[in-house]
Order: sequence, then C-alpha cells, then structure tokens
Amino acid sequence: MCLDFTRRTVAACLFVALSFAPLSALAQSDPQPDPLPSWNEGTTKAAILNFVAEAVREGGPDFVPVPERIATFDNDGTLWSEQPVYFQAEFAFDRVRALAPQHPEWATEEPFRTILTGDRSALANLGGDAFVDLLAATHAGMTVADFQGEVRRWLATARHPRFDRPYDELIYQPMLELLAHLRANGFKTYIVSGGGLDFIRTYAEATYGIPPEQVIGSTVVTEFRLEGETPTIIRLPQVDFVDDGPGKAVAIQRVIGRRPVFAAGNSDGDLQMLQWTTMRAAPAFGLIVHHTDAVREWAYDNPSVIGHLQEALKQAPERGWTVVDMKTDWKVIYPFEMK
Amino acid sequence: MCLDFTRRTVAACLFVALSFAPLSALAQSDPQPDPLPSWNEGTTKAAILNFVAEAVREGGPDFVPVPERIATFDNDGTLWSEQPVYFQAEFAFDRVRALAPQHPEWATEEPFRTILTGDRSALANLGGDAFVDLLAATHAGMTVADFQGEVRRWLATARHPRFDRPYDELIYQPMLELLAHLRANGFKTYIVSGGGLDFIRTYAEATYGIPPEQVIGSTVVTEFRLEGETPTIIRLPQVDFVDDGPGKAVAIQRVIGRRPVFAAGNSDGDLQMLQWTTMRAAPAFGLIVHHTDAVREWAYDNPSVIGHLQEALKQAPERGWTVVDMKTDWKVIYPFEMK
Repeated sequence: MCLDFTRRTVAACLFVALSFAPLSALAQSDPQPDPLPSWNEGTTKAAILNFVAEAVREGGPDFVPVPERIATFDNDGTLWSEQPVYFQAEFAFDRVRALAPQHPEWATEEPFRTILTGDRSALANLGGDAFVDLLAATHAGMTVADFQGEVRRWLATARHPRFDRPYDELIYQPMLELLAHLRANGFKTYIVSGGGLDFIRTYAEATYGIPPEQVIGSTVVTEFRLEGETPTIIRLPQVDFVDDGPGKAVAIQRVIGRRPVFAAGNSDGDLQMLQWTTMRAAPAFGLIVHHTDAVREWAYDNPSVIGHLQEALKQAPERGWTVVDMKTDWKVIYPFEMK
Repeated sequence: MCLDFTRRTVAACLFVALSFAPLSALAQSDPQPDPLPSWNEGTTKAAILNFVAEAVREGGPDFVPVPERIATFDNDGTLWSEQPVYFQAEFAFDRVRALAPQHPEWATEEPFRTILTGDRSALANLGGDAFVDLLAATHAGMTVADFQGEVRRWLATARHPRFDRPYDELIYQPMLELLAHLRANGFKTYIVSGGGLDFIRTYAEATYGIPPEQVIGSTVVTEFRLEGETPTIIRLPQVDFVDDGPGKAVAIQRVIGRRPVFAAGNSDGDLQMLQWTTMRAAPAFGLIVHHTDAVREWAYDNPSVIGHLQEALKQAPERGWTVVDMKTDWKVIYPFEMK
C-alpha cells in the first residue's frame, strides 16, 4: 500500500503512520506478543516459530521469497475434527433423512436404508458403491450455488453428536493461530483436502480466513449450462478428481504450480503432499497432527477408515517432519474452550 | 501494509509517507498519467476506464469489493498473437524436428512426416488423432520441470516466421497496459486459456506479471512418483481437461470459485466465459479483441481453425460486450514498436 505512489494512498499512509507512531514507540519497550498462545512451549512450537522466523530473515540461508511462501493444509483431522465420521458424511446422511419423504423406495434400498436406521456401526461398513449412490443422491443434480446453499443451511442447524455444537465450531484453535501467523509473515495459506471442494468453500473463508481460490479439494464433474438468460454450473453425479494421497501432490502442482514450503496433515492421505513439499534442498517444513487426546478430542492413528496414520508417522523422523502431540502440545483444542 | 500494526511496518510507512509527501503535493497540480497510453481515445478506451473507475468508487452503485475483483483473460489472440498457427503448435513442430534424428520412423509416419516436410498448408489439415500423437511425442513422458525447461529453451531460441522475433515479444502492448491498470486497482488477473497450463506458466509471470497460481489452461494427466529420494510430477500422454468453450466457465468455477467481473477473449472459445462473467445483475465487463489489422498484425474472425469469432461477435451488442477494433483502437500492437 505504502509503495503505491498515488496521492490518496500516500495521504492515507501518512495519516496511519502518524497515528500509530506513538504506538510503535511503545512497542519498542514491550515484548512481541506470542503468535501461538494456544501452543505449549516445547520443541514443536519452537520448530514452527524458528522455521517462520528463518523464512522471512532476508539474507539468511533459509530465507524464502514471498511468492514462494506457499503453505498447504489438509482439512479433516488437521484444521477441524473428523470423528466419529467425516463431517461431510454427516451432511450427506442428514440430506438423506431430509429427502427421504420424497423417496419411499429408500426404506429398502441401500445405502439409504442403513442411513435411515441411523445405525452408525453399519454406516462405517458401507462400501464404495454406497459412496457413489450417496454422492448422486445428496451432492449432485443441482447448481454449485444451490449445493452451497444446502451446506450453509446444514452448518447453521446441524450439531455434532458428541459436543452438541455446530460442526464449524469443532476447529482447532492452535491451527487457527498457525494459519494467522503464517499469513502475517507473507505466507499464502491453502487447504488441500480429500473433502469436497464446494463443501469446504462454503465455510473456509469465514472459518479459516481462506478464500475460495485457495481451496483445493475433491470434485465432481460439472457442466456449464445457459438456461434462458441464466448461466449456471451444474454438479453431475460423477466423480471428477479425488484429492487424496498422490492426488494431493498432483493437484497442488496443477492449481498452484509451485511446490509448497510448508505442509500440514494428519493421515497417510497426506504422505505424498508432505514428501512433495519437503524432499528437496530448499527450506521446507512438514507438520503432522497426531490425535493423542482421547479426553479433549480423540486418540487414534490406525482406524479402518478415517485418519489412518502409519506410513507418514514412520517416515517422520527420517524426513524431519514435526509431529504434533495434541495432548501435550496444545493448551486448548477448540475456540469455545476459551470462552 | 500500512494497516499492519507492527513496529517495523509503521516505521517503514512513516518513512515512505514522509519521503513522498512532496511528490504527492506536486501531484495535486499535475493531471493523473494516462494508464492506457497505447489505446486511442474513443468509446472502447472510455468504457474500460469508466468500468474500472466505478468498480473502485466506494459507495457507488457499481462498486466491486476487492476480493470480487477477478479479471480473466484468454491468451492466444487476446494477450499475444496466434497466427499463422498457435505458438504452442510451433513449439511442438520444433520439438518434432529436434527429436527426428532419434525417430527415423517419423520419415513415413504421420503427422510427423508432414511436420518434417514443413508444408504449413498441410499442417493446417492435420486432424485430432495427429494432435494426440503430437502431444504424446512432444508434451509427455517427462516431468513438469523438464517440460518447462524445454519450453524455456524454445522461447529463448525460436523466432516467429513473419516478425523474426522471439514469440514472447509478440504480446499486445495495449493489453499489458490493461492488465497493469486492473492490478493497480485491486483486480486479480488470471489467464484462462485453451493452451497448455505448463506451457503458459513458463513465461506468464515474466511476460504478463501473472503468477503460476493465476494461470488456468488445458492439462494432460499427471502422476506423482517418488523416484528414490526424488519426488516428481510426470506428464502422461493423455488429455486431462480441455479448457475451451464451456470448459472455461467450468474451470473458472473450479479453480477460482468466484465469478469474474471482467473477462476478455477473442474467439467463440471464449463465449461461455464472457456469458458466465457478464450475464447477471452485478456489474461486469466483457471485452472482445477483434483482429482487424492485416497490416500490423492479422485480420480474421472466420478461419477454419484458429480464432473463429462469429457467435460471440453476434451476441456482443445484446450482451453489452465491448469489441476492440485493433486497427482503430490500438496505437501500437507490440512493445517492440515503441523502441
């Protein structure tokens, strides 16, 4: 802003600069505030702060030019919780319940029958075909705008079974602070998730401060249609791209076109993103969120479906990835614990 | 920058503000410099300047908030020339000539035989199969990094048959000024091209000031591979997505997730991008570059292959799209004319 030499901006800068000159003078005697107050002191927090400090230290050996400051974050289990099932699956199940009256045949058709019985253990065993049927019934055959309207309505009304709170309140306070600290230091923060692109975009900006163009996710095939004088983008019941595992490295290259210097994940689905980000000479940081807190959140790393974390955890030491121990590294898990 | 309340930034703002205070005083008496000096005065230039002025006028009826200031530009024929054939095709032909010694069979195999004869008229008649064979032989089977290295070497050595200049000098000076003017007013400028994503990214930042993450293009299927300790992204000989026609609207939604408020193109391949951008209540601007200058560039809008512009031109009046008449609206075509 201050480098934009228009009369108006210079005037504004002069005003702002003068207004905060006393504040800046004060700041000289005050210590800098802790950018990660919800992180306990320790090697994890120190490693993060040191990487960012070195990345912005001009002339230093690990300096990263601003355009290269790309940070990518998995979403489920890394920025918000993912138990007892992925929150987007809860959305799909709720959609089935809402649409059931118009589909009497679902009382006998799988996977709808099982979903309508509400038998959670049975739900965990639904196969791949069930996923596609569910996608077609709950995520397709409408415009992107209409779909996002449904997601918004769901986020405003649905409540998590364990915490009895809206799903978008089950986000990790320490990760919000990390996102903000990276952005304050010139990093561009991206979500790279196996979850649905249009689903995440409905709340990512308000919840994480991540705009739609910085969300990468799984997609269905979409189609442009001009209906009369109204152009629309329709979601079709067909999987386009699954942004998971090696797909995350592929999507990062396709959408961003730069290798990130910071990547954070929590499962083996993030393994290749961590490898793509860190396995090179340039300075880079790999972070794994390890779910170790059964009391405040969940403790898991080897379930059948969600959050399988074995290979990435095994490679962490040799690759120099930093592993967050939720139980000991995080003072609080969710923002509402601070209220 | 000036709104970032850190000691260092405020100090910097204060310095900058004070340094340019005299300059700003001067500016009060001086008229603002023309942001589009290579555009002749007239309705086209006036329409562009007026749209941008209204988009940034807070409180005005056509004000556009900064995050919504998305401008999308086609590349071939809109930002640089595309005759006598798309420049990326010239790259492919040159690659075939360079690789021919290792492929004696190409002396009899099409499309390689025709390419090696250099018969341009015959080249124009190569069909879709030829395109796929050419893609496989010249654009695939290597890492993205290696491919971009080839493109860089080609741009540094190849010369356009008519102008005997590097291809990246055949860019439109008036469009460079338009891109800069939009960015100076808070617009995020994107390329949305039927051309290859990795091809365009090799020169878009240096040539147009458009970073890799703001380039949308056609793609081949890519694959992540960990070769020993080296992660790579390999380009496979298989078309993934063709970013043309309705595909442009689809890709804009998928990659950006916002509808642009400004779109510029030059062929019917840009029709749906123009419709998606402008057919709504919100303020928006559609621009068509009409190639009308056979002396300084080329005059065409209805060829068999390149730059077919009929339907978009027909819809322009009813849709309120602004049509650039190259011959009368542009003082110069290429930057080198100014030297």
